[in-house]
Amino acid sequence: MNAEELFRNIQRKKSFLCVGLDTDYKKIPRMLLDSEYPIFEFNKGIIDATAELAVAYKPNLAFYETMGAAGQMSLEMTVNYIRKQHPDLFIIADAKRGDIGNTSKMYANAYFKTLDCDAVTLSPYMGYDSISPFLEEEGRWAILLALTSNEGSADFEQLELKGGNQLYEQVIKTSSEWGSVNNTMYVVGATKASEFANIRQLIPEHFLLVPGVGSQGGSLSDVAEYGMNDRCGLLVNASRSIIYADGTNRFEEAATEQAAILQKQMEAALKARKLI
Amino acid sequence: MNAEELFRNIQRKKSFLCVGLDTDYKKIPRMLLDSEYPIFEFNKGIIDATAELAVAYKPNLAFYETMGAAGQMSLEMTVNYIRKQHPDLFIIADAKRGDIGNTSKMYANAYFKTLDCDAVTLSPYMGYDSISPFLEEEGRWAILLALTSNEGSADFEQLELKGGNQLYEQVIKTSSEWGSVNNTMYVVGATKASEFANIRQLIPEHFLLVPGVGSQGGSLSDVAEYGMNDRCGLLVNASRSIIYADGTNRFEEAATEQAAILQKQMEAALKARKLI
Repeated sequence: MNAEELFRNIQRKKSFLCVGLDTDYKKIPRMLLDSEYPIFEFNKGIIDATAELAVAYKPNLAFYETMGAAGQMSLEMTVNYIRKQHPDLFIIADAKRGDIGNTSKMYANAYFKTLDCDAVTLSPYMGYDSISPFLEEEGRWAILLALTSNEGSADFEQLELKGGNQLYEQVIKTSSEWGSVNNTMYVVGATKASEFANIRQLIPEHFLLVPGVGSQGGSLSDVAEYGMNDRCGLLVNASRSIIYADGTNRFEEAATEQAAILQKQMEAALKARKLI
Repeated sequence: MNAEELFRNIQRKKSFLCVGLDTDYKKIPRMLLDSEYPIFEFNKGIIDATAELAVAYKPNLAFYETMGAAGQMSLEMTVNYIRKQHPDLFIIADAKRGDIGNTSKMYANAYFKTLDCDAVTLSPYMGYDSISPFLEEEGRWAILLALTSNEGSADFEQLELKGGNQLYEQVIKTSSEWGSVNNTMYVVGATKASEFANIRQLIPEHFLLVPGVGSQGGSLSDVAEYGMNDRCGLLVNASRSIIYADGTNRFEEAATEQAAILQKQMEAALKARKLI
């Protein structure tokens, strides 16, 4: 999928919602625990309940890895289910990987071939050759950490460099030359809405993946106001506020309700910008 | 395992060798492909052939993830085998993870509980709360990327900050306050031996994990001269030069031979420093 196709999906669905599948065995409804693959059954329920309201899904791999091989199986089943039932959806492996070139090539294979994901999140720390293997296949994306929404982002991401840039700004400047608007996105934390205008000066055309709306406290209207561009340019993620909206057998309806609230706000923002 | 116990293992084995289990399905002897778990069978052969010459093993998770659930199974079997057959060995999950706090907690669970590893490699980009969940259990280690051995390390790791430090130096300074010499190590690429003296000024007591000797071109004698401290303070990794020393059914003997060459050099370095 390229940027234009992603934008068309956003227009059609009137939504730039990404649903984070941070699926924790301990938090899913108890009744699912009797099934053979509870994590997959839960994800399937969430996906079917929200697919009309979202353009992207983002399984966070930590939640699957913590369950070992069974978790890996659930992840594969989830990705395959999305591909088969909802082929227009954009799938992001939230992995935050990054290693030397030949190892990153293995990771790219893991997420783009073994798992048929559209995109993978990456840490930029190790530089060009840790990222470039993810930029080699048309339609597949690297999503680089830029400015994250956690407290620790002050430790290194926001350090001032000799030339005056903060580290995350330099990460954006340097790495935006490596790929294009059709294969590179950036993670920008929604708790820093004041920084969006600045980031948009650096990369007016790129898509941004914005976590931190909902449980992490970011404001969707700020994000839309400062972060949106002419092709929307935003995927806003919500995880816990949607998938754990209700801990009973009503979890699917509750997920639909919560996703619909965000979709309505997104529709309004897209209209205000005259993008739909 | 704490730093003193690790040092005692180094003294007893006269070696600070870490064997990297970057096990690639395409590179293992063909005869193993008939077994149910070829990757595990290969690892088992390598481990038994080198366990007397090494103190640590480092499976690189990319190589297992690229094989999906079967790869995860092989990884679990490998870690369990080491734990059972060679309980004195230090096991490093080379994962280069790092995420917001609650997600890093999941990763810590994945590597320290689901998989019983001693240590995990981490990217420091996201700061304190992405690392701290790995520092909570006694005897388990966080190994932070500092200065890596790849070309891309120039892109960000070596950028000069406003105060005059390079980014990797600041990473070391800041993060060495988060834990202790008993739960924090740093990845320092062996192709930058000239930087070891500088790093040793910042962290004289910490263990360093040094990849890049062998296939990546680093010099063991430089590393030992500039990087060794009073408790050795080094784990030097070799992967491809040992595990793929021979592509036939002689792979185990060849691995022993290559590991023995490095062990002899390490023994000499430890003697020169009067540590054994």
